[in-house]
Parts: sequence; C-alpha cells; structure tokens
Amino acid sequence: MPKDKLLFTPGPLTTSHSVKEAMLRDIGSRDDEFIALIRRIRDELPGLGGVSQSAGYEAVLMQGSGTFGVESVISSVVPANGKLLVAVNGAYGERMLRMAARHGIPVEALHTAENQTPNPDDFRRLLAADSSITHVAVVHCETTTGILNPIEAIGVVVRDAGRTCIVDAMSSFGAIPIHLENACIDFLISSSNKCIQGVPGFSFVLAKREKLLASEGSARTLSLDLLEQWRGLEQSGQFRYTPPTHAILAFAGALRELEEEGGVAARGARYRHNHEVLVNGMRAMGFRTYLPPEVQSCIITAFYVPADPKFAFAEFYRRLSGKGFVIYPGKISQADTFRIGSIGHLFEADIRALLEAIRETIAEMEVTLETANDQS
Amino acid sequence: MPKDKLLFTPGPLTTSHSVKEAMLRDIGSRDDEFIALIRRIRDELPGLGGVSQSAGYEAVLMQGSGTFGVESVISSVVPANGKLLVAVNGAYGERMLRMAARHGIPVEALHTAENQTPNPDDFRRLLAADSSITHVAVVHCETTTGILNPIEAIGVVVRDAGRTCIVDAMSSFGAIPIHLENACIDFLISSSNKCIQGVPGFSFVLAKREKLLASEGSARTLSLDLLEQWRGLEQSGQFRYTPPTHAILAFAGALRELEEEGGVAARGARYRHNHEVLVNGMRAMGFRTYLPPEVQSCIITAFYVPADPKFAFAEFYRRLSGKGFVIYPGKISQADTFRIGSIGHLFEADIRALLEAIRETIAEMEVTLETANDQS
Repeated sequence: MPKDKLLFTPGPLTTSHSVKEAMLRDIGSRDDEFIALIRRIRDELPGLGGVSQSAGYEAVLMQGSGTFGVESVISSVVPANGKLLVAVNGAYGERMLRMAARHGIPVEALHTAENQTPNPDDFRRLLAADSSITHVAVVHCETTTGILNPIEAIGVVVRDAGRTCIVDAMSSFGAIPIHLENACIDFLISSSNKCIQGVPGFSFVLAKREKLLASEGSARTLSLDLLEQWRGLEQSGQFRYTPPTHAILAFAGALRELEEEGGVAARGARYRHNHEVLVNGMRAMGFRTYLPPEVQSCIITAFYVPADPKFAFAEFYRRLSGKGFVIYPGKISQADTFRIGSIGHLFEADIRALLEAIRETIAEMEVTLETANDQS
Repeated sequence: MPKDKLLFTPGPLTTSHSVKEAMLRDIGSRDDEFIALIRRIRDELPGLGGVSQSAGYEAVLMQGSGTFGVESVISSVVPANGKLLVAVNGAYGERMLRMAARHGIPVEALHTAENQTPNPDDFRRLLAADSSITHVAVVHCETTTGILNPIEAIGVVVRDAGRTCIVDAMSSFGAIPIHLENACIDFLISSSNKCIQGVPGFSFVLAKREKLLASEGSARTLSLDLLEQWRGLEQSGQFRYTPPTHAILAFAGALRELEEEGGVAARGARYRHNHEVLVNGMRAMGFRTYLPPEVQSCIITAFYVPADPKFAFAEFYRRLSGKGFVIYPGKISQADTFRIGSIGHLFEADIRALLEAIRETIAEMEVTLETANDQS
C-alpha cells in the first residue's frame, strides 16, 4: 500500500497507525466488553473539559458527524417556547442558524465580521433587551477562518443572565483548554475526528446534567434525541441504535495516546508549535495570513490567495496533493483564501516538509509572491 | 491480539479481515481519490437492487446508523400535508411510527402479530378508504423476529393506488434479492454493516429520482435532509458534512468482496445454508423456532427460550460469549425468545462450531430440552 498523504485539514485528520489498528476488530455492540469501553470513554471525556460526572456533567456519544451532534443539541434542548441567539462570524455559526430555522425554533443572530470576535457586552445587551431568548450558541474555534471566539467571557454573561450556553467546540476540544464550569458551558459539542485524533463516525456532547434533564420533551427528532441517547447509555450502557463500533475502538486508543502525550496542554502546545512553524515559513515565502494574530487559533490558518494571476488554487492543491500533502480550500465569504490545518498526528518535520513542497510548487507554477517586507 | 469472538447478531457483524484492513488509511474527505470512491459506491449500489442511475434511481449515503437513514427518508420525503401508513409486526415498524409522531407527521399503523406478515389486500382497502395517506412504509426483514414481509405485493398495491412506497431493507438488502422497479419501491434504506458486510458508520438510501426531487421543501432537519445530501453528492461529489471516511473505505472493499462471492444471489445462498445448518442443529438439540418456516428469513432466527427453569438467558449468553460466540437477546413482545444471526463473514464451519458450543453450554447448565419428537 502506498504511503498515505498527510492531511493538513480540519478533519478527517492524519491519525496514528495504532489508532487505526484498533479498528482491526469486530466487537458486538451489545457485548460486555464494548459496554465497558463506552463507559470508560464517557467517564474520561468530561475530564478533558475540567469537569466530571460527580460534578454534574454527562458525556453523550452521538452517531454521525459533528454537525449531527450540534443539531442533536439544538433540536433537543431548546424548548417549544424557547428562542436561540447565535453568534455568527463564519460558516459554522451560520449552520446553527439554519438548523434552528429548520426546526422552527425562533432564532436571532449576532453577526460580526469573519475576522472579528463577538463582544460579550453585545450579548449582555441583547439578553437584557429580549427576555424571550432562552439559549445562546457560539462556536469556539470557527474553522471557517481559524478564529478563536471568547467563549469564557460570553459564557459568564449567559450564566449571569440566567440563560443556557451551547458551545460548538468541534475543532478545539482536546487541544485548547476549556473548563466547562468556569466558562459556564451547559452543552459542549465536539467530534471523534478532531483534536482527540480519532477517526470520523460520531460526535460527543458534554452536558450539565440538570440542563440535560430539563430538556425532557423538547427533542424534535428520534435519532438525534440527546436525552434519550443519554438515558439509553445510562440504563443499558448501550447505544439506542447501532454504534460505529470500529470508530469507537479507535477513539478509545486515541484517548490513551492523548494521555500519553501529556493531555490537552501538551497536545495544544504541539499544535501551537506546528502552527508557528507553518506561519513563519509561509510568511517567509511571502504568504499573508487572513486573521490578526491576537484572534488566530493554532488549529487552522487561512492564507490569502497570492495576487499573482499565475496562482490558481485548484492547480496549487493538485500539485501539493501529488507530492503527498492535502490542504484545504477557503470558506470565507469576505476574502479569497485557502486553509492549512495544524492538527492531527503531525509534527514539526511534517510541517517543514509541507513548506518545502509549497516552495517547490510555487516555483513550478512560476508564481511571484510579495517580499517579506510588504506583509501584514 | 486475541482472536475476535464471532458475531451471530444482526450487526455490527463479523467482517473479513481485508474489509477491516481497508481502514488502515487516512483519506481526505474532499480529496479527488475519495470523491471517486464515493462515486463508484453510488454507481454500484442501485445495481444490487436491480436498477441503475440511468433507469432513474439514485443512491444517497447518510452518516449514522440505519435508523438515521430511515428517519432521513421519513422526515425528508413526507410533505407537510402528507400522511404515512406503516406496516407494523415488530420493533422496526414501531420505530417508524415513533419517528413520524416525533416529526408531527400524521401516521396510521397496520398492525399484524409478530409472527404474521401483513396482507397486501389490507393496504388496498386502507388506501382506498383514506385518500389522505400519501406514503406507505414497510420493513422487509423485521429483525425483531426474522420475518420476511411481502414487499413486492405491497409495493404493487401502493403503486396502483398512486402512493409512495418506502421499504426498510436494513437487514435484507445485499442478500435477499430485491428488484426496486418490480417491487415498486420509491425509497429503500439499508446500512453499511449488514449484508454487504462493511463496518457500521453510515446508511444508504436508494431513491427513485423523480420522487426524491418531488420531496423539495419537506425536510424537517438539516443533518438528515435527504435531498440536500443527494445534491451535495451530485454537485461536488462530497458529503455536506464530515463522512466516516474509514467506514466508507471498508464498504468499498466489502462491495468488491460481495462481487467476488458471486453477488446477491450467492451471498443469499450462503446465508440460507448457514440458517438451515443452524436451525437443523438447534432443532436436533430440542430448541424450537418462533416463526413458521414459510415466513422465516435466512437473516436471523428467533428461538423460544427453553421451558426448563434452569435456563437463564443471561448465563447462556455469558457462557457462549466466553467460548467466543456472541448471540443476540430477544426483542419480541409476545414470546420469550433469543436470536441467532446467520449473516456476516460466517460459514458452515462457524455455525457448526456455534452449535457445538451451545450443546456444551446446555450440558454445563444442566438444562433439559424437549426431545425432537415434541417439536413444532
């Protein structure tokens, strides 16, 4: 089998060989060993967010991609007479708006530009002005740009206003420290194939138990019913419907490897280093980053497409892919960019190899980049 | 690594080692190779149902378990002013009722006993009497018991009445021949980890294109929006949201192995043989099957729990599991049974090994079974 390309994407990611090897098994979804495995995973996950079951937090695994997890929360916990306020500065905030609309949930957006973080004071003002708002949702790391939103400050405002706080921490959880209790997060969503470095197949929700129990009767779907999913996991230890057993075996291995690496802080430090090596190398070549550094996460970085008309992203992508490096297209509405992820089983040597391949590709395409002096 | 237990369940199943080995790769979800792989799978699947894209049928893959696929269809294709009629003779029919109710879709059940198939004439009568019914849903092989419902005869009645026919062929598709056009099926749902012998992680829907297009505007969720999922796959070749890339790699391998085995007919013949060896062996020991043979599928078989009070299912299960054989609990409301599946990468020698383990276990538990002469 040829060597895999390295994935500089927001996921599915490059994972370790041992994580994938954990999938070379067929395990019964109702067998004791699998039930014990789910229990262990559900016991460990809250700890990555600084909380625990005994402190009142529950972990619920949900089949499907991260979006399924987000829709599970939005469609299961906002009551019929509720209203959702969503912070929007990218595609994933927009997606939550669409979900709410699809379920007929009254929804309001707090828009900011894609390169700006929302101001917690705006939430305070909006929540004070509109008592019908019951829930607030915000994306932690907006993968659209890689911007990091101030969830702690927003969470405190939401808690002080007596509302429920939902955080989409899809691409940050497991690498960027989050303390659910300090950040006043009632529901946090992430997925198997992001910073925990498992394979795709399910998402997970960390929920404050009292808020989860209070959602009784609100679920608008059967498959994505968060409370029923939790009850099934608690009562029988099993998923209500067929779980992705292999992806869960891989995830258990990935959790062990996260621990061996030194936990969330160590993983975040590696990603931060990957990101810095990447950005320094790209800047040295003449690429410019989209975001100002003070709001840029270490997860994924958006670079402006070079002004030289010889640069065509499709060709750039294809040539890099041919050299074994998969990058990611842009998703920003306000600027022409492409993205490079720094997460997954990737290390400094991989970033340097990518930079070298980009250097070669730019030369092959005869693209001229601005000199380092011109850069922002 | 210890040898895996053999799974005599309705899935996740025992799969071939080569199918699992296909997952030892990380592939980019938006990379050309993966897009080509999805295209190939979507081109091949309709053929297993006797139809093709050029004949007007489309294959849509959907993240999550089979239930997510069924809910995707029910919540996406029944319009706001529609009404669903569901044939119910087991837990999976009941589940479709619950889905419809959850989405506020008017729904009516046609109940039959769990050991009886519905009569197509009853559908004719009900459809004639209630013009508000727009869609009819029926489970092909009701895994609750293993009963095989007459989808072809029901499909013709539904078509003649000008309604839309939905078939949950979760545990039958790929082994029991189904011709979508002849059976007048507009939407058929199955999943990756059943008779095609892949691993769990997604379901798939085969849809008559004109009916799929006619569902515009009916989807009640974002994640499970069938038409949008299809449009995404058609327009960009990609999933809208992160696909289970590893499960899809395994599925592509599983499709090749299905072809190598000789296709649907050959696979069905192997399962039929597995089933016959199982039932003959179990009857020889004194076990009795729940279903009359004329409605029994070759997929999964329900056996009555022995009358001897020394038989406790939990202990029987645990002892068999300890010997490396995983069977399945009962799910029938009207009788005390357990179930044994005959699908997956299992062959006559595996069935005979299971029978021997059951014989030993019965002896260890000192359970007395009726003699062969008493059996029904």
